[in-house]
Amino acid sequence: MNENNELYDLIIVGSGCSGYAGAMYAGRMQMKTLLIGKIMGGTIITTDIVENYPGFIKLTGQELADKLKEHALDYKDMVTMVEDEVVKIEKKNGSFKIHTESGQVYNSKTVLYATGTKHKELGIPGEHEYFAKGVHNCALCDGSFYRNKNIAVVGGSDSAAKEALLLTQWAKKVYIVYRGDQIHPEPVNMVKIEKKISEGKIEIINHTNIKEVNGDKFVRKVVFDKSYNGSHEFSLDGVFVAIGLIPLSQLAEDIGVDINKKGEIMINRNAETNIPGFYAAGDVVDTRFKQAITGVAEAVAGVYSAYMHIGG
Amino acid sequence: MNENNELYDLIIVGSGCSGYAGAMYAGRMQMKTLLIGKIMGGTIITTDIVENYPGFIKLTGQELADKLKEHALDYKDMVTMVEDEVVKIEKKNGSFKIHTESGQVYNSKTVLYATGTKHKELGIPGEHEYFAKGVHNCALCDGSFYRNKNIAVVGGSDSAAKEALLLTQWAKKVYIVYRGDQIHPEPVNMVKIEKKISEGKIEIINHTNIKEVNGDKFVRKVVFDKSYNGSHEFSLDGVFVAIGLIPLSQLAEDIGVDINKKGEIMINRNAETNIPGFYAAGDVVDTRFKQAITGVAEAVAGVYSAYMHIGG
Repeated sequence: MNENNELYDLIIVGSGCSGYAGAMYAGRMQMKTLLIGKIMGGTIITTDIVENYPGFIKLTGQELADKLKEHALDYKDMVTMVEDEVVKIEKKNGSFKIHTESGQVYNSKTVLYATGTKHKELGIPGEHEYFAKGVHNCALCDGSFYRNKNIAVVGGSDSAAKEALLLTQWAKKVYIVYRGDQIHPEPVNMVKIEKKISEGKIEIINHTNIKEVNGDKFVRKVVFDKSYNGSHEFSLDGVFVAIGLIPLSQLAEDIGVDINKKGEIMINRNAETNIPGFYAAGDVVDTRFKQAITGVAEAVAGVYSAYMHIGG
Repeated sequence: MNENNELYDLIIVGSGCSGYAGAMYAGRMQMKTLLIGKIMGGTIITTDIVENYPGFIKLTGQELADKLKEHALDYKDMVTMVEDEVVKIEKKNGSFKIHTESGQVYNSKTVLYATGTKHKELGIPGEHEYFAKGVHNCALCDGSFYRNKNIAVVGGSDSAAKEALLLTQWAKKVYIVYRGDQIHPEPVNMVKIEKKISEGKIEIINHTNIKEVNGDKFVRKVVFDKSYNGSHEFSLDGVFVAIGLIPLSQLAEDIGVDINKKGEIMINRNAETNIPGFYAAGDVVDTRFKQAITGVAEAVAGVYSAYMHIGG
């Protein structure tokens, strides 16, 4: 354990869009700020094309993350970033002690918690065994291995639809396997899906769950919970699981931050939680319509709240 | 009066950053959208340099507005914009009727109200008489007329400070006249102000009000409410008034939308007002820390709420 003597004005936990935007504003506020993140750029770097961050008609997720990071580092007299994982947060007489995976300990007057989410699992036989050998969570990262193959995306959300659309550029055919009645992407993406269906590149299999993944060294088939084209077994070379995300709120919950039933941190319009000095933003919070832009704005509000808290 | 037959899914009132970002998202949602605005670009186009819209390290207010507008018009199959002023809104059996200055009438299922603010006035003799002849609200618009002149900025906010900083590039000297104890810009701007003070380009006159503006054809002097350097009169060629903004919420209030004591529209985290189908965003709403980025995110939340309201 190696305790850092600096008492930061703000520690940001998380290095995604929200964390970076918060760091930029904190720099402008002349707050001594440390940003700690496990994956620089966060979840957005697994997104191929971003068309809905207002101001940029089209750029990659990596490009957006890079722009936000570069903007924060424009205030590098105030903002420092370290690549490390926060494993524990302690509350101590009006300040916070942050422990990391590498054994560092940092102290801060305030915290902006913007850890995001992780992927939900199907919880079926073969899922762990074949992870990264046919079972994946990121079309952009792993899609190119499936040139001219038949693969599936599991899920009915906008994210699932975007994964399927992206995969059509490599795959022979993409099956969207959804347990519900009808997939529900953003309308603009539904239009794209329908076009791909008409071209025979996408097919939707509704009311269906995958209950097992099988193969040799790699995935070769799945087992459905109902018959499809006369059989429960279905030949596939890959399965991209996009059934939702789990908020990474545990470390906050451990110090008594209020969490809702979905595991999301409850914040108000100032990005305040129930713990004074502790703010949250981005995919880990209880916003109804979560977007990069909404997380960014929450981080800005949270940093302003932190600034006011330490006496602005 | 010329009534348009189209029933829009969404009419956006206001053509600033929030309105444009809302239009872009509405386009993505495949909502038939009309944006009506009096000043294309809104208040931000009077801002010289924007350094705090996350993702753009530095650009002009006009450039940011242009980027947001261009992004919205990337969905021009869904989004139309007209330059006109909304003068009245009526609520009719679950939809809204929008009347404009030019005599047009439009109908919509939902409204996103993002009209912004107008400048507060000092309310002193000479202010109206000399408006645009020495009394101004926009350093960027009118500052270049004051090369090598002595001028004042009235106000103590971050906006006032930024106006003063910008004016130093033309003026001989800029006096910041503030009624309170100490001006309170963002810290990053206070640092810049202090540098200009040390260079003799800015001087702060606290605890002072201007009670009259005087001159010939143009402003030549002001009268303070207390003696400064031995006199109540002070020679100046220009006065830039930056004492705050008044939310343009009247048309919303007229149909029963809840307004707070500051005249701001009260919204929740989904940008909903108390009137179903009527959403609000940007400088006209009751957000504590108002920024371009927070208004943009409110507009995105409001459009999603509108989308859900009309049956998603």
